Amino acid sequence: MPRIASIETGFYRIPLPEALTDSMHGEMRAFELNTVRIRDADGAEGTGYTYTVGRNGAAVDAVLSREFPEIITGEDPDGIERLWHKAWWALHYGGRGGPTILALSAVDMALWDLKARRARLPLWNLLGGYDPKVPAYAGGIDLDLPLDALLKQTDGNLAKGFRAIKMKVGRKRLAEDVARVAAMRAHLGEGFPLMADANMKWTVDEAIRAARALAPHDLTWIEEPTIPDDPAGHARILREGGLPVAAGENLRTLWDFKQYIATDAVSYPEPDVTNCGGVTPFMKIAHLAEAFNLPVTSHGAHDVTVHLLAACPNRSYLEAHGFGLERYIAEPLRIEEGFAIAPNRPGHGIAFDWESLARLKA
Amino acid sequence: MPRIASIETGFYRIPLPEALTDSMHGEMRAFELNTVRIRDADGAEGTGYTYTVGRNGAAVDAVLSREFPEIITGEDPDGIERLWHKAWWALHYGGRGGPTILALSAVDMALWDLKARRARLPLWNLLGGYDPKVPAYAGGIDLDLPLDALLKQTDGNLAKGFRAIKMKVGRKRLAEDVARVAAMRAHLGEGFPLMADANMKWTVDEAIRAARALAPHDLTWIEEPTIPDDPAGHARILREGGLPVAAGENLRTLWDFKQYIATDAVSYPEPDVTNCGGVTPFMKIAHLAEAFNLPVTSHGAHDVTVHLLAACPNRSYLEAHGFGLERYIAEPLRIEEGFAIAPNRPGHGIAFDWESLARLKA
Repeated sequence: MPRIASIETGFYRIPLPEALTDSMHGEMRAFELNTVRIRDADGAEGTGYTYTVGRNGAAVDAVLSREFPEIITGEDPDGIERLWHKAWWALHYGGRGGPTILALSAVDMALWDLKARRARLPLWNLLGGYDPKVPAYAGGIDLDLPLDALLKQTDGNLAKGFRAIKMKVGRKRLAEDVARVAAMRAHLGEGFPLMADANMKWTVDEAIRAARALAPHDLTWIEEPTIPDDPAGHARILREGGLPVAAGENLRTLWDFKQYIATDAVSYPEPDVTNCGGVTPFMKIAHLAEAFNLPVTSHGAHDVTVHLLAACPNRSYLEAHGFGLERYIAEPLRIEEGFAIAPNRPGHGIAFDWESLARLKA
Repeated sequence: MPRIASIETGFYRIPLPEALTDSMHGEMRAFELNTVRIRDADGAEGTGYTYTVGRNGAAVDAVLSREFPEIITGEDPDGIERLWHKAWWALHYGGRGGPTILALSAVDMALWDLKARRARLPLWNLLGGYDPKVPAYAGGIDLDLPLDALLKQTDGNLAKGFRAIKMKVGRKRLAEDVARVAAMRAHLGEGFPLMADANMKWTVDEAIRAARALAPHDLTWIEEPTIPDDPAGHARILREGGLPVAAGENLRTLWDFKQYIATDAVSYPEPDVTNCGGVTPFMKIAHLAEAFNLPVTSHGAHDVTVHLLAACPNRSYLEAHGFGLERYIAEPLRIEEGFAIAPNRPGHGIAFDWESLARLKA
C-alpha cells in the first residue's frame, strides 16, 4: 500500500452568523475549526476536522502540526487501528482528553475518508451500511431567545424539513424552562419529537426536579442534565427523574462511554466524532450501545456523522447543527421530510472551500 | 488586592542525563518543561510548572500563552477557587484533560506560590501544616537496566539517604519481574519498603496473576497495573491480587479520583500536582482519600509536592523523581534518612535558573 506522504493542517476562526448562548458556555461569537489533510504516496487524500466553541484551537493545532507528522508519516494509512493506538500511546501522558483527543479525532476521520475514497465507497457503505436515510433533528442553541423568536426559529426549522427539534433549557428559574417547553409542545403538537438540553447546568437533585416538571410535556430526552464527570449522578437522574437522558458530547473516550452505558447512566449515548477519538471509537461506542440495547444519537459534525449513523442499526436521531460550517462546504447535508441523507460520493464527501477558509486563518 | 498584571510562559525541552525506559512509554530521551510566572500589580510573582515525557508540550504552551492571559489578567489572584473554575469552564469544551489540565495545573501552582509568598509563609504551612518531614522514596525508571545495574542504582539511592525504593516491572515474561523483585528484596533486606510500578502494562487478569506472584516479596504496593480508564478492573486487581494498588498519575480530575476512591479501586491514590489540575485539586484528592481512610502518595514534581504532603495527615510516601530538573533549581529537595524536608522559604521555594533554561527553549 502507498504510505502516508504528508499531513497538512489548518486552523481557522469562523465567526458565527449570530451569537449563540447556552447555559454553561455563555455567549459564543465564533468557533474554531482545525482541519487535517492526509495524502498518500499516490496523491490520494483524506480530510478530517474538529472544532471548538472558541478556545483551545491553538492547542489542537499544536498537536496536529507538532506531534502528528512524526507519528504517522511513512506509515500505512490502511492500518487505522494500529495508527490510532500508536498515536494514543505516543500522546498518552500529556494527552488523553482535551485538545489531544480532538486532534486525534480529526486524524482518524481523515484516515477513514482516505480509505473510503481509495475504495470508491461512501463512508456509510464502507462502515457496514444500514440505511442512508437517518432521522435528524434541528439542534437549537437558543437559551436566551425570547419565546416569540424561539417559535419563529422553530417554524424556520420545520420549513427546512425537520420533523424533530431540540431546544435549550437551564434558565435562571425552572418555571421559565417549563413555560418555554410547554409553549413549544403546544406549537409543535402532540407526538412531535421534542428534546431539551441543559448543558450541564444542574446539580443532580435540581435535574431530577426539572425532569419531573418537564415530563408532562413528553420530551424525547433531557440532555446533559449535570457535569460529565458524574456517571452515578446521571444514573440517579435517569432512575428518579422519569425522563430518558442523553449525554456524551463531553465524554472523550470509549471507556468514558462504557462507564455510562454499563451503569444505566444514559438512555441515548451521544458521541461527537470530532472529540470522542474519531470514526474508530464512534463506531465502537455505537456498537457498545447496541449490545446494551440502547439507541445511539450524535453531537455536531452532522455532515460526517450522517455516514456513521447510516451504518448503525441502533441509530436514533442525528443532530443537525454545524455552526454555519455549511457555508464552507461544497454540498452540505440534505434534509428531506425529517431525514438526513448520507451522500453516495466516495469517502465522507465533504469538499471544503479552502480559498474562503484561507481568509479566516487563526 | 493587587490584580494579576502579567503572565509569562516558557517552553523548554530538557535532555535527560540518561535515557529512561518503562513498560508503556518506551524510551525517553528528553522531557518537556512548561513554566508560568504570574505577576501582580505590585510586582510580586508566583511560579508554576508542568512537564511531559516528551510530547504535547507545544499544546500546553498554546493553552498557556494563547488562552490564559485573557482568562486571568486583571483578576484578583487571591481568588484561586474562583479563577480555577473560571478557567475550567472557559476551556471546558476543547479541554478537560490532556494539555489543558497540565496548563491549568501550572497556573494554579503559580497562584498558590504567589499567595504564599505574599503571606511570607512556606506553602506547606499555608495549606494547613502537618509535618515538614515527609517519608520519601526513590522512583527508579529502570525497566531495562540489567540486574547488576539495578542493584548499583539502588546502592546509589541508599547513599543519597532514601529508605524506600520503587522499581519498574512489566518485562516480557512475568518470571523476569519476579526474579528482579526477589533480587531487590534480598539486596534490601526484610521490611525495607519496596514498591513496583507496571505503568499500565497488564490486562486485569495478567495483573492479578502478577500481584499474586509478587506478593511473597512483600511489596508496599503495585502501581498502575492496567490502563487508567478501567476503575472496575483496578478494583478486581486490588480485591483478588492480594497487594495494595497505587494509581493516579494518569487521572486528571478530582472526579477521576472519586471514581477510584469511592469504589475500592485504589489503596494509595497518587495525584501529580502538575497534571491533576494543580494544588487546589491535589489537596481535595488528599482530603477525599482521608475521608475514605486511605493514605495518599504522589507522582512527580517532588519539590512542590513535598509541601502538599507536608500538609496532609494521611500522607504516605513522596515520590522523589524529577527527571533531573534539580539541575535548574537553586536549592533542590533535601533527603535526610528517608525523609524529604519541606523548605521554610516563602511559597514553594523553587527558584528556577532562567538563564540556563533559556538555552533549552523548545
